[in-house]
Amino acid sequence: MATIKVGMLGIGTVGQGTFRVLTMNYDKILASTGLDIQITKIYNRHPELDRGVDVPEGVYTTDVNDILKNPDIDIVVELIGGVEPASTFIKTALENGKSVVTANKAVIAARGQELAQIAMDHHVLLRFEAAVCGGIPIITSITTALLSNHFEELQGILNGTTNFILTKMEEEGLSYQEALGMAQEKGFAEADPTADVDGLDAANKLSILISLVFGISAPPAQIPTRGISNVSSIDMDFASEMDFRIKMLASAKEENGKVYAAVSPALVPVDHPLASVANEFNAVFLTGNAVDDLMFYGRGAGAMPTGSAVVGDVIGVARKFEKDSDYDLVPQLRYDGGLDFAGEGSGRYYVRMTAPDQPGVLGRITTILGWHNISIDTVVQRPQKKAKGQSSTAPGSATLLFIFQKAEKKVIDRALSEILLDKAVTSVENVMRVVEE
Amino acid sequence: MATIKVGMLGIGTVGQGTFRVLTMNYDKILASTGLDIQITKIYNRHPELDRGVDVPEGVYTTDVNDILKNPDIDIVVELIGGVEPASTFIKTALENGKSVVTANKAVIAARGQELAQIAMDHHVLLRFEAAVCGGIPIITSITTALLSNHFEELQGILNGTTNFILTKMEEEGLSYQEALGMAQEKGFAEADPTADVDGLDAANKLSILISLVFGISAPPAQIPTRGISNVSSIDMDFASEMDFRIKMLASAKEENGKVYAAVSPALVPVDHPLASVANEFNAVFLTGNAVDDLMFYGRGAGAMPTGSAVVGDVIGVARKFEKDSDYDLVPQLRYDGGLDFAGEGSGRYYVRMTAPDQPGVLGRITTILGWHNISIDTVVQRPQKKAKGQSSTAPGSATLLFIFQKAEKKVIDRALSEILLDKAVTSVENVMRVVEE
Repeated sequence: MATIKVGMLGIGTVGQGTFRVLTMNYDKILASTGLDIQITKIYNRHPELDRGVDVPEGVYTTDVNDILKNPDIDIVVELIGGVEPASTFIKTALENGKSVVTANKAVIAARGQELAQIAMDHHVLLRFEAAVCGGIPIITSITTALLSNHFEELQGILNGTTNFILTKMEEEGLSYQEALGMAQEKGFAEADPTADVDGLDAANKLSILISLVFGISAPPAQIPTRGISNVSSIDMDFASEMDFRIKMLASAKEENGKVYAAVSPALVPVDHPLASVANEFNAVFLTGNAVDDLMFYGRGAGAMPTGSAVVGDVIGVARKFEKDSDYDLVPQLRYDGGLDFAGEGSGRYYVRMTAPDQPGVLGRITTILGWHNISIDTVVQRPQKKAKGQSSTAPGSATLLFIFQKAEKKVIDRALSEILLDKAVTSVENVMRVVEE
Repeated sequence: MATIKVGMLGIGTVGQGTFRVLTMNYDKILASTGLDIQITKIYNRHPELDRGVDVPEGVYTTDVNDILKNPDIDIVVELIGGVEPASTFIKTALENGKSVVTANKAVIAARGQELAQIAMDHHVLLRFEAAVCGGIPIITSITTALLSNHFEELQGILNGTTNFILTKMEEEGLSYQEALGMAQEKGFAEADPTADVDGLDAANKLSILISLVFGISAPPAQIPTRGISNVSSIDMDFASEMDFRIKMLASAKEENGKVYAAVSPALVPVDHPLASVANEFNAVFLTGNAVDDLMFYGRGAGAMPTGSAVVGDVIGVARKFEKDSDYDLVPQLRYDGGLDFAGEGSGRYYVRMTAPDQPGVLGRITTILGWHNISIDTVVQRPQKKAKGQSSTAPGSATLLFIFQKAEKKVIDRALSEILLDKAVTSVENVMRVVEE
């Protein structure tokens, strides 16, 4: 039996989950691995608050250096969140010879490369399974059992909040605002839901996955990102009629030495395994040149699922310690893939526009699309309901729904700008990728 | 750069896939891990046959001891299949200080415990990710990232052949025989399909998963196993009307210190993630006390997906070698879980019977069910079509379809025997488990 002393930074939701998983499954972990894992210190700026977990006397500390520079601590678990001060704490811990386990996607997406190098230099480990998709063992799988593959493509439902909202819009016919309200009530969305609904959270996770899968740096801010707030019941109805479901997808693909990526709502064929991922669940669908299609499905957030991944990493690090081996210093994050990051690339896209309900509009739109060699796969025109009090003989508006054949996204953007400049349409209201069968 | 010399036993489908994966992804593996993995010997009893892979001069040998007892070989990869002589070869390799990677589910299910002990005694590793669900990294995940969990339940579509057949019956309205023929044409089913369609292949895989997940021995022959050959279009139609899909499930569950398990066709609610696993794909759905529900989906067979898992294991073993560490001797297979294996347990079941079309039959059936405290959830009675030439006034038969409320499987079996003895029904034609939402 080897005793492993863990110092934890933060005792919020994930900290409480991690504490509970370690307590609840202590016997099982000891029996399977011979590891006696003890949380001996917790950095907690507010020890007076009740955290709902039974932390023994003397474990809480308000001085972070009691952990970062404590020679008795073997592993530091960072669960504060946000880039700073978390990133500085992790750096200090690594420099003091401690391996670090973190659930912090923002830190890994922003500083992963630098921190991985510091870990290498100090012969310690940096692990972050919980940073992407909570309890789903996607990082472990990519960096161990699937390492024999060259990956071609990945598509993920990486954000539970947006998946919950889109599921409720589809299944219960709620508006975006109503579904967001329901997500907030159930605790799946923050009071300020921006990071989730605008896709920033998913972009952080996608950036980490791109490093693991393709070995390149794709900073979150450079990943084209569109949120779900423009998704309407019109889009939902159209998708349903055409046998699609709307999912917020984080996608990346390699083609001819370039990596294309985007975070965007997308139309997913109902028969695709990603279409069955409902409510707050996450999934990653990826394609390797040996293993072909794989999908991982599970809970991407929450105290216990995230705690499961944190404790999994702690066990992984501890197993290495115990035998005094640093074999696994192969950096998980890689930036030597020799590929270029190249934006969103090409694909099939769905576009919803509003146009004046008058003759010739469709002709002008298709002419401009033709200049850009964009072909139309499907077009549906619907009259818009008049606003209350509006004269029924006033000139109305029409909704135009298109699916374009495969084209470069930047060419589509250019064509849509020209269509708007031409005043052929009043507005372009939603653009979504269409996933192939 | 560390050179790892691999000796491979067998160059059939999986051997060819393993060879191809290693050749095709050699550069990627070298770049990510620093490992130069070379297949230096292949045991091939028929070197005159064309295997469709470009094996260099001098690599083939017809003497298995050229590999098992060769001091230059670091890792032995066993891809012969079947319990013997594969099991003896693995034993000899381990005793000669070589780590072994195998894709052989029959060997691991039958001799895993003994072989794991021999590996421990000789400080070498025994890995078998490819033995369960081909390319899906289920064993790695359970024994590393998910080790922090106590698992409550697992349900798997572990056999691609039966899933393909059931999918074609459902989607194209084929009979069992027609769908089996199509599977054979496409190479998804053997000329003798018994091991697949009767569930023996799935029982081997389930036995391995039970050891990993629950830490007990459940020999395949002791797992209640029912095949798919009784599944008819009547069952398919009923399932579809009731919003189920029929899947061949391997299931295991812990309750009060007992582990229940069975392999059987089952009714899966269409909204359940397992229901969307179509054609030859496999999936494992499992529930941990921290991570909650997880599903792994992918290709469970085929040269390249299985080769992906074999090479993943070779890399895993080689990484340990390189650093001269044996930290990972924690046995993956466990038999110290302190639980009892207790057969199939209880659940909701679907039963299809044929009965004479005459008054009182349903009353007699329900009376006998009542004696056993079995309640009926759903019952549907349908007239059977007369055979050609049969008088339309001859006494006919009726098909009775039941879903029972939760009951012990052995009690249901007893009740069905009495119903048959009573001659209340002519035959009991199919029994399937009903999966909860």
